Parts: sequence; C-alpha cells; structure tokens
Amino acid sequence: MSTATLTIDLTAIRANWRALNARTQCETAAVVKANAYGLGASTVARALAQEGARHFFVAAAEEGVSVRKAVGQDLPIYVFSGHMAGDTDLIRDYNLIPMLNSVDQLIRHAENLSNHPFGIQLDTGMNRLGMEPVEWQAVRDIAVHLGPKLLISHLACSDDPSHDMNEQQWQSFVDMTQDLDIPKSLSATGGLLLGEKYHFDMTRPGIGIYGGLPFTKAKPVATISIPVIQIREVDTGETVGYSNTWVAPTPRRIATVSAGYADGIIRAMGPKTRLYSGNVGCPIVGRISMDLIGVDITLLSETPTSLELLNAHQTIDVLADNAGTIGYEILTSLGGRYRRKYLGDLA
Amino acid sequence: MSTATLTIDLTAIRANWRALNARTQCETAAVVKANAYGLGASTVARALAQEGARHFFVAAAEEGVSVRKAVGQDLPIYVFSGHMAGDTDLIRDYNLIPMLNSVDQLIRHAENLSNHPFGIQLDTGMNRLGMEPVEWQAVRDIAVHLGPKLLISHLACSDDPSHDMNEQQWQSFVDMTQDLDIPKSLSATGGLLLGEKYHFDMTRPGIGIYGGLPFTKAKPVATISIPVIQIREVDTGETVGYSNTWVAPTPRRIATVSAGYADGIIRAMGPKTRLYSGNVGCPIVGRISMDLIGVDITLLSETPTSLELLNAHQTIDVLADNAGTIGYEILTSLGGRYRRKYLGDLA
Repeated sequence: MSTATLTIDLTAIRANWRALNARTQCETAAVVKANAYGLGASTVARALAQEGARHFFVAAAEEGVSVRKAVGQDLPIYVFSGHMAGDTDLIRDYNLIPMLNSVDQLIRHAENLSNHPFGIQLDTGMNRLGMEPVEWQAVRDIAVHLGPKLLISHLACSDDPSHDMNEQQWQSFVDMTQDLDIPKSLSATGGLLLGEKYHFDMTRPGIGIYGGLPFTKAKPVATISIPVIQIREVDTGETVGYSNTWVAPTPRRIATVSAGYADGIIRAMGPKTRLYSGNVGCPIVGRISMDLIGVDITLLSETPTSLELLNAHQTIDVLADNAGTIGYEILTSLGGRYRRKYLGDLA
Repeated sequence: MSTATLTIDLTAIRANWRALNARTQCETAAVVKANAYGLGASTVARALAQEGARHFFVAAAEEGVSVRKAVGQDLPIYVFSGHMAGDTDLIRDYNLIPMLNSVDQLIRHAENLSNHPFGIQLDTGMNRLGMEPVEWQAVRDIAVHLGPKLLISHLACSDDPSHDMNEQQWQSFVDMTQDLDIPKSLSATGGLLLGEKYHFDMTRPGIGIYGGLPFTKAKPVATISIPVIQIREVDTGETVGYSNTWVAPTPRRIATVSAGYADGIIRAMGPKTRLYSGNVGCPIVGRISMDLIGVDITLLSETPTSLELLNAHQTIDVLADNAGTIGYEILTSLGGRYRRKYLGDLA
C-alpha cells in the first residue's frame, strides 16, 4: 500500500468538545462544516452526538445530508448559508434549519417552507453573512413573528482577545437582539475562549474540537503516516527533486515517501517541514511533488518503512506556520487519497 | 444550492491529449494519477480511452482500481510507486503494471507475482524514484531476463528547455537502456515539448492534458462558478472578513460567495485574485474564509447570482501565480464539495 494513512482520534475530538463545553454554562454546539474540517462529518458528528452535542452546524444544505443520517432525526442541524435558491427540498427532506442571512432569504423561506424552522444570522460588523442593523430593524417584527429558533452572529477578530472589534461586535449583537426571548449565539472557538460574556445561549466551536488554535489546550486529533517507497544514498553535489533546488552538501541518505501536494501537503510548507521517525525529525529536501516527497534521513540509525508528517511534535499549527497559513487550511486541504483510520469507540 | 460548480470540459481534455499526441510519432499515454489531477480519474480515463489513449499511469496501486473499471480489462495501467508491501492483491486483481523502483521491489515482485507484467523505473539524476545507475548495472541482466514491459525515467527540469539537466538525464537514460529492445519512456508534458529526441517509444503527458503550463497551447479545462449568498453596501471605513484586513476606501458593494479554502481556493491567492461576472473581474476583499469569500462588485451594473473563479480569463496558471504555486497544485487542491459537471459526450 503506498497511500498514506490519516488517523483521526475520535477520543481526542470528544475530549476537546468536552473541555470546551466545560468552559461554558450554555449549550455547546459542534461545527461540522467542510466535512468536519476535512476529518469526516459523518463519523465526527456521530461521535460528538454520543458525547452529548445536541446542535450541529454546516455551511451548505448539501452538507446537512450526511450529518442528518449520522445523528438521527431529532437533533437540530443549522445551515450557515441559509436558504439558497434550490435548497428547499433538502431543507425539508433532511429537516435542516437555515440561518437566514437577508430579507431575500427570509422571503424565500416564508414563501417555500412557511412552517419549517429557521434561524437568523445578523451582521455585527464582519460584513460577510447576515442582516445588517438597518435591514434587521426593518424586518425584525415580521421575522420575530415567524418564530426564529436561533439568532446568531460571527466575530471577525476573536483569535485576538485584545482587539476592539470583539467588544464592538458584542455591543452590536446585544443592541440587535435585546428584548427578544429567542436563543442567541455569537461565538465560535475564539469567542468561547473570550469568556462568559460572549457565550449567550450557545457557543459553536469548530477548530477547537479539531485540535487547533486558538484553543491552546486542545489535544491533537490527526496523525499522518506516509510509507517510504525507497531509500538512496546521494553524493555531495547531487540534486533531489524538481528544478534541482536542493543540492546535497555532504553524502546524504534520502527517503522518497509516497504523498505530496495532491494529499494537501501544501508545497509552500516544504522548506521548514520535517518528517518524523519516532522523535527524530528529518527535513524535507527538494520540492514537494504531487505524490512524492524527498526526506533527508541521514540522522536515523534505523531504516524506516514510514514517516510521520503530522503528530504531537508537528501539529496542524506548526505545519500552518511552515506554509504561511492557518491550521484550519491544513485540515481542510487533506484530500481524498488517504486511508482513513478512526481511533476510539463509536457505539 | 450554495455549493459551487466545477465544470470539467471533456472535449478540451480530449483536444489537449490529441494535440500532444500529434506532436510525437510514438505512443502517447495519459497520466491520471491523483484522481486525474483532481478532475475525476474514472471519467477522464474513459474519455481519453475513447480518444485513443492506450496507456495510463497512476501514482499508487489503489488509484488503479477506478481506472481499471473505467477503461476495461485490456489497456495497460502503470503504477509509478511500483510494487509496495501489501500491493500484491491489487496489482493482480486489477491487472496493474508496477514500475519497480528498486531491487527490493524487484525481489518483492518476483517472489509474489513472478509471471505478472512489470516495468522498471530508472533514476537518471532526479534522485526521487527509480534504480540508480550502479544498482541497475548490478541487476540489469536478471531484470531484463524477467521481461519488463517498459523502462522509464523522469526529468527534473523539463519545464525549462535551456536547463543542462535535460541533456544530462537524456544521456544517462540512453546509457542505462542502450541495446535493450524494451519500450522506453522518459518524458511527461515538459519533455514531450522538448522535441522528438526526448520521446523514445512513449510520452506520458499529465498537466498538458489538464490545460496547464508548460503546454502553452492547452485549452482550459476547468471552470468554477460560485453562487452569491448575499450582497451588501458598505460605507467608507467599514471592514470585511476576518481580522479586519480590508477597509472600504469608499462606499462599495460587496458580494459574499459560497466557497472558500475548504474548496481548494488557497488562502494565499486572495489579494491578487478576481471573481468574474462575464468579462468583468471583481477583486476579492478581505481574507478567504473556509466557506465564504467577499468580493467587491461595485464595478458591476447588474446583480450577479454567481461569480466565476476559474475561467478563460483567470486560468489555473494565473491562480497559481496569485497563490505563489504551480497550476498542478491549484487543480489537485479543488476538494470534494463541488457539484461536478462534465461537458462533452462520453459514449
């Protein structure tokens, strides 16, 4: 087998959700959009439902289908993109709750699924999704009359606790929702960590569940192990990989492993990234190819049959730094070629 | 429907293969590894088989399964990673031809599947996959006696026709294979374009088929269209997206579209990338989120219901430049959330 193995620790996912849940007095939902950040929405949602999560969020109605099948008929599944043209059947058939983002969506929902539950997303300054204060002012009475199940907004700068934007968005959310006896939610992982003031009735962690910053106490969730295809000795001055970018400074031992950027191992991470054999990190040499990576294993005393890219030594956030991005993008890039293995019981 | 649509033009894929094939007098294979560079190995392989391709290459034995089902029982499918531990059943059951990369693999193959076809990959200086000259010298007689179907190597610098490495690898390949009456192949798209000297008995284009450089005459193959979720007016000084990185310089009209880096729209491409409505390019504003992108559509006279990321104006190579990478990585990153639509007949 030459495809790499992505191991997903459901016990760690459950522990992370539990630890986040323990920090609040309110409901703790679980964001499982983008296929649970690349880790498998169906399996992850089932594990979290078993752990006690009672509310799930996806990005698009299409994503709600597998989550509905995973968690059973009753638990609410909310759709961030709301009620888009063409979504009506999915929303009805899979009992999804669209978070309506605009007056257009409110009208579409009322016209097509008048008795079907919905929520409303408010824009408190991120200018991404949700009704603006003026728009909300205009339709608030009608919308409330229709009985929304949840009012949410989203923080733009919650990974920086000192940013003024957090307080501004909090104030705007309070202003827009005051006197309304409807459950409210403002915070994802970052906002949850800002403290109780930001919790309202429900938090919606995503990245913290999956082991990433800003939840510094998160347990790592994913491990990637890549088979070694072959090992060679190269002499001083020999080159490795495309465009001859790496030249052996002394005689080196090079392993070629069978994964590459088609597996979401972002090309840009190459120069700073190591592959591990036990506790020993071996530098990537040359460019990451589509399906192959060269690794300098001169340091190793043994001959490895596989090397680890992602583990407790080199987390998604370390890889993100190496690639000039964020841990979220490391996870969602992982791709479809891995052999996926889940650790932890699933009843 | 809020998920984006990835349209793959099989007519263009067939035309690109035909155009590459027309430049050689030898066999022209098709590389369909990494799920045909993200575009769907099964459908693409079937289309290319109908167009006349008679040889297919994949990276791992696991990838050979869907290609075998797509092209029928007879056409050869070669596996670049060779015969790995655990591959024997797949190689036999799906009639795959491993390209043996080392003496270890040669022994494994001989011991497990002695009468099953194989090829040999030689290393001519890239130091990635394949037997080294000294290793080959040692086992060449035995290996040839076992009857390899194909001898290949791979060029490290073929996208730069002036690079000395091309000639060096050519010479090494000739030295290693001389006097052997076995089909030979050295070149992928880049080497094919270097001219007849590099063609030997078979070329193995990949990226050129899929519309990317270095095949400058390639027809674009993929189009991405992303639904607009909502449109808002922002005033001077308002911010859009995470961390408030974009500030409106004047009153602007902003569309939020429903795709993001979870769809392989690499975060790093944001600042330089536009989304198109017809011929008008509208800049991305703020950071690309996991499932959402903000776009300044002030320039547009109409109200779009969708915008295009990838099209004839903004090809995979333009996006690659914007993201600081190569067109190959743009394609292989596209991810699993798109609604995929194929253009062109498939018998």
